[in-house]
Amino acid sequence: MAKTALTDHAIHNTLAVRWSPYSFSNQPVARADLAALFEAARWAPSSYNEQPWRYIVGMADADGDDDTHDRILKVLAEPNQAWARHVPVLALGVVTHEFAASGQTNKAAIHDLGLASGNLVVEATTRGLSVHQMIGLDAAAAAKSFDVPDGSEVLTALAIGYADRGPSADPEFRKRDSKPRSRNSIGEFVFSGRYGQSALF
Amino acid sequence: MAKTALTDHAIHNTLAVRWSPYSFSNQPVARADLAALFEAARWAPSSYNEQPWRYIVGMADADGDDDTHDRILKVLAEPNQAWARHVPVLALGVVTHEFAASGQTNKAAIHDLGLASGNLVVEATTRGLSVHQMIGLDAAAAAKSFDVPDGSEVLTALAIGYADRGPSADPEFRKRDSKPRSRNSIGEFVFSGRYGQSALF
Repeated sequence: MAKTALTDHAIHNTLAVRWSPYSFSNQPVARADLAALFEAARWAPSSYNEQPWRYIVGMADADGDDDTHDRILKVLAEPNQAWARHVPVLALGVVTHEFAASGQTNKAAIHDLGLASGNLVVEATTRGLSVHQMIGLDAAAAAKSFDVPDGSEVLTALAIGYADRGPSADPEFRKRDSKPRSRNSIGEFVFSGRYGQSALF
Repeated sequence: MAKTALTDHAIHNTLAVRWSPYSFSNQPVARADLAALFEAARWAPSSYNEQPWRYIVGMADADGDDDTHDRILKVLAEPNQAWARHVPVLALGVVTHEFAASGQTNKAAIHDLGLASGNLVVEATTRGLSVHQMIGLDAAAAAKSFDVPDGSEVLTALAIGYADRGPSADPEFRKRDSKPRSRNSIGEFVFSGRYGQSALF
């Protein structure tokens, strides 16, 4: 299904059609597509080009003893597990809080993980893929499960796959996915002169 | 000038050609373009659709007594002021740390400002504009200057304009802009099984 944004100003189609579905088809994601998603993340800007983002990725159809998908699923908050278990690719977004060279705190680190994941989402959208990001997870359990070192933090999870073409068979997912998209107007978050005073375009 | 990324996997051209210049032309940014940039930010995803991003924007060519551009410039770190003073649009990225409804801390807030600014950058790139984001600024001075309320934080600044078509006349900016773009390889930041073990695509 499609849920194109009702924009007040025309924007690039890729940004307008992106949304975060709860129901995904079981169509697997080609490895070449997945590589391109992380390549897109790779070229995001970051403060001092530190690239403080790391990802741990698991494919439901992984060969042999790679159970990363299962282990990511287990550290998600339970309400996320309910729908994310059906998504063919799950990833964790990890942030490194200190600059590698100096050990100083990188104030931009979490923000820059957002920039990288934003790039990943754009690349996914151009390939017909959908991404549903989550903050609801057990960061300590994730760090333990994947040996994430001190100074790094598991902050987000990303479910990556193809959105179901039609309404979900699951009534709860169907209800969530049919909710119209809504946003604050530009005047509510873009200011000039002082905070709270709408910028005029 | 152009600095297309040397990618290992093909990605959408908009993501590949984006870079953060130091030298901008003095060509003004049309208000319609600027509105579209913030419209793009508007439709970014966010945790619980909280949209914790706010922007304060100033145009160098603003009419009358709107001195927002000057006042943003003044709160930037001095090394950023040197080049950003020539950029026709300056903005501050502000994050609201608490959920409006509950007052609880929004753990995704800074990350989601990154998602919004990432969308803004994509829209800018499709319009031939460049964005150079900064973390180096005096957040307390910015909050004071623009009456930013407690619970919100001025985290980033964004310089928005057209990159100079040729090398800058300023030797320092020319040197920085001529530096090749470099990134960690995917194998250095995308893992599977455990942190540090490269995912194979």
